[in-house]
Amino acid sequence: MSDLKGEILRLGQQAKKAALDLVKLSAEDKNRILLAIADQIEAEGAEILAANAKDVAAAEAKGLTAAMIDRLVLNPKRLAAMAGGVRKVAGLPDPVGEVLDDWTRPNGLRIVKKRVPIGTIGIIYESRPNVTSDAAVLCFKSGNATILRGGSEAFHSNQAIAAAMARGGRGAGMPENAIQLVPFTDRESVRHLAEMDAYLDLIIPRGGKGLIETVVSLARMPVIKHYDGICHTFVDASASLPMATEICIDAKCAKPSACNAMETLLVHEAVAETFLPQVAAALRERGVELRGDERTLAIFPDLKEATEEDWTTEYLDLILAVKVVSGLDAAIDHINTYGSRHSDCIVTADEANANRFLAEVDSATVYVNASTRFTDGEEFGFGAEIGISTDKLHARGPMGLVELTSYKYLLHGTGQIRG
Amino acid sequence: MSDLKGEILRLGQQAKKAALDLVKLSAEDKNRILLAIADQIEAEGAEILAANAKDVAAAEAKGLTAAMIDRLVLNPKRLAAMAGGVRKVAGLPDPVGEVLDDWTRPNGLRIVKKRVPIGTIGIIYESRPNVTSDAAVLCFKSGNATILRGGSEAFHSNQAIAAAMARGGRGAGMPENAIQLVPFTDRESVRHLAEMDAYLDLIIPRGGKGLIETVVSLARMPVIKHYDGICHTFVDASASLPMATEICIDAKCAKPSACNAMETLLVHEAVAETFLPQVAAALRERGVELRGDERTLAIFPDLKEATEEDWTTEYLDLILAVKVVSGLDAAIDHINTYGSRHSDCIVTADEANANRFLAEVDSATVYVNASTRFTDGEEFGFGAEIGISTDKLHARGPMGLVELTSYKYLLHGTGQIRG
Repeated sequence: MSDLKGEILRLGQQAKKAALDLVKLSAEDKNRILLAIADQIEAEGAEILAANAKDVAAAEAKGLTAAMIDRLVLNPKRLAAMAGGVRKVAGLPDPVGEVLDDWTRPNGLRIVKKRVPIGTIGIIYESRPNVTSDAAVLCFKSGNATILRGGSEAFHSNQAIAAAMARGGRGAGMPENAIQLVPFTDRESVRHLAEMDAYLDLIIPRGGKGLIETVVSLARMPVIKHYDGICHTFVDASASLPMATEICIDAKCAKPSACNAMETLLVHEAVAETFLPQVAAALRERGVELRGDERTLAIFPDLKEATEEDWTTEYLDLILAVKVVSGLDAAIDHINTYGSRHSDCIVTADEANANRFLAEVDSATVYVNASTRFTDGEEFGFGAEIGISTDKLHARGPMGLVELTSYKYLLHGTGQIRG
Repeated sequence: MSDLKGEILRLGQQAKKAALDLVKLSAEDKNRILLAIADQIEAEGAEILAANAKDVAAAEAKGLTAAMIDRLVLNPKRLAAMAGGVRKVAGLPDPVGEVLDDWTRPNGLRIVKKRVPIGTIGIIYESRPNVTSDAAVLCFKSGNATILRGGSEAFHSNQAIAAAMARGGRGAGMPENAIQLVPFTDRESVRHLAEMDAYLDLIIPRGGKGLIETVVSLARMPVIKHYDGICHTFVDASASLPMATEICIDAKCAKPSACNAMETLLVHEAVAETFLPQVAAALRERGVELRGDERTLAIFPDLKEATEEDWTTEYLDLILAVKVVSGLDAAIDHINTYGSRHSDCIVTADEANANRFLAEVDSATVYVNASTRFTDGEEFGFGAEIGISTDKLHARGPMGLVELTSYKYLLHGTGQIRG
């Protein structure tokens, strides 16, 4: 066994042990620990910023893009946001212990289904150092032990943040090894984590599609993830066109880099000639490049043609693919064929069409008459978000604290036997 | 691409299409189809039995054990049970469409969380041909398209059962390809299924540990499973010893081959000298071989010594490992170290100990004063069971129809944008 593998197995064993200690904590215990962690992040702010400066200098020396460096950089404002985020989680309700069901069988055996922590969670992420505290405290609040494995670019920053969390937590009674950071950033460490199903109950990868593909290929335990956000807006024949324009502008332009931003606009043929000029003018004014199918090009001959590839591309940029469709069935079919099961919207005044769209579009969040940009834990009212799932098992759509829990069955008998 | 892989991808594409058709069926549609399937299984009984006779003859020629052949054999009684099982599923409530949550955000956006089918489910199983109909109809009732891949021993039986289901279902309006059987039984077909995450949302392997290990290693989609049932009974100092003896006899002897049967007995040192002779006499009378740790051997010097290996062995036989422990902490520690997170019991009259055991034993079902044999979908009142999960994601413990569903969020707006 390589030293690396052995070291990661050791972290796993420690996490499993910590998970057993974590179930003994009350909500008050956890909140006290979280507040101490927030305080310690602030108290060690200078050390964290100094460590971050090392990472940023290395990134600059390596010639990373300005966008990549921006993701990496910490400053006093971002540090304060990090500590503030931890305090916010302390203020959220504790999902653990909730009784989900409670019934008694004819033989008198009482069955209680109770919400419990999942156990041990691995977080594999890339260059944003704030994920170190954001993910760890959500996992901690829901009673889970965490193993964090951040990207190499943020190595010193992550070490400093994790050290502050450990020191702050320890002083307030956090179980040992409740939050651990993998001290390696080579790719083999991802493999060893993903194969360690004896000690990790779940992996949540946060980052680009390449990272997620790698984790999914290797993992022996469940992985919660989304690869893409190829989100659609379908403007139906009966849509209020001013409303549709507003929704399209928001869904495409408010934050083009978000996974819940619109990538493809589908327009009912009955309104294409009226609606497309309106929405195109508004979008172009905001710098959006439009690409159209044949029928869109018939209205706007100067557009670049949208190819098969465009229907499956998450631009994450001010680009929009546009297609004129023959109606609701064609729209649903396009979304279920090319979409990524993330967030899709119909703008319509026809209730029957709205209901069919809601029922038949196979996506985590399906909208009638609202921007897809609301697919977000905060916007749903969850108070926090660990990520968005386009999987269908365990958690789908935005994931808050509740989605970081499991359940167990507690059976209360008086000597029942099955015979 | 090999022909095999191409053929399995084709099944996957067909299943995904069928899943989109299945969401359009009402509970009444599904029940009508299920009853037609049951009728057709009976109508084609002679063909199914003839196909089964071929499999049995081949198994005998290959020299399979009597136990293996018994698993394979169909007869009129088992056929009737198969059809009866389908009719029973038709009578169960449909979980699809249930509103799990419904709230309105301050901006007026209404969010409805609704139960929906998972989509497409692969069932990979071994030699019992009844799994072909049992698993398929549970998946169908919960609105999922199924791809079945049975073992080579039951190849002809499975083909005949699947053909009857397809014919019966088709006549009653079942969407095409809602239930498909992989017409290959070589190991490569398992690999192709497990890698096909574009078209399969979930795999449920049913069979021995080797099969499950293979599926887990290869799968890119979620897998719900249990490897072992290493179930414990801990007899506390305050236990009613007659109750403890009854529970031990039931948990060990009623069906030793069941995954919820007891494999290890833990006895509090304070009652070991009183309890062990009682329970040992009762168990030995029923043919149980006892293996003991050092402290058990001090009471019964003639026993075989239990080694480290015994603590992690699922005997599935009339063998029981016995250990004397110093108390509750040692019992919980033993179970969390060596157990399989399946079903574990404390026999006690001490409420505080019962509550600590329930809270701290990290298993799917944890019992106070009842036999672990109740870990079963029927015994829980679910009406049916697709399997038992020792995973912590999505489903834990016995899984019925509800555990074969997911949910989606339906957002009803009036033009809301996020800005």
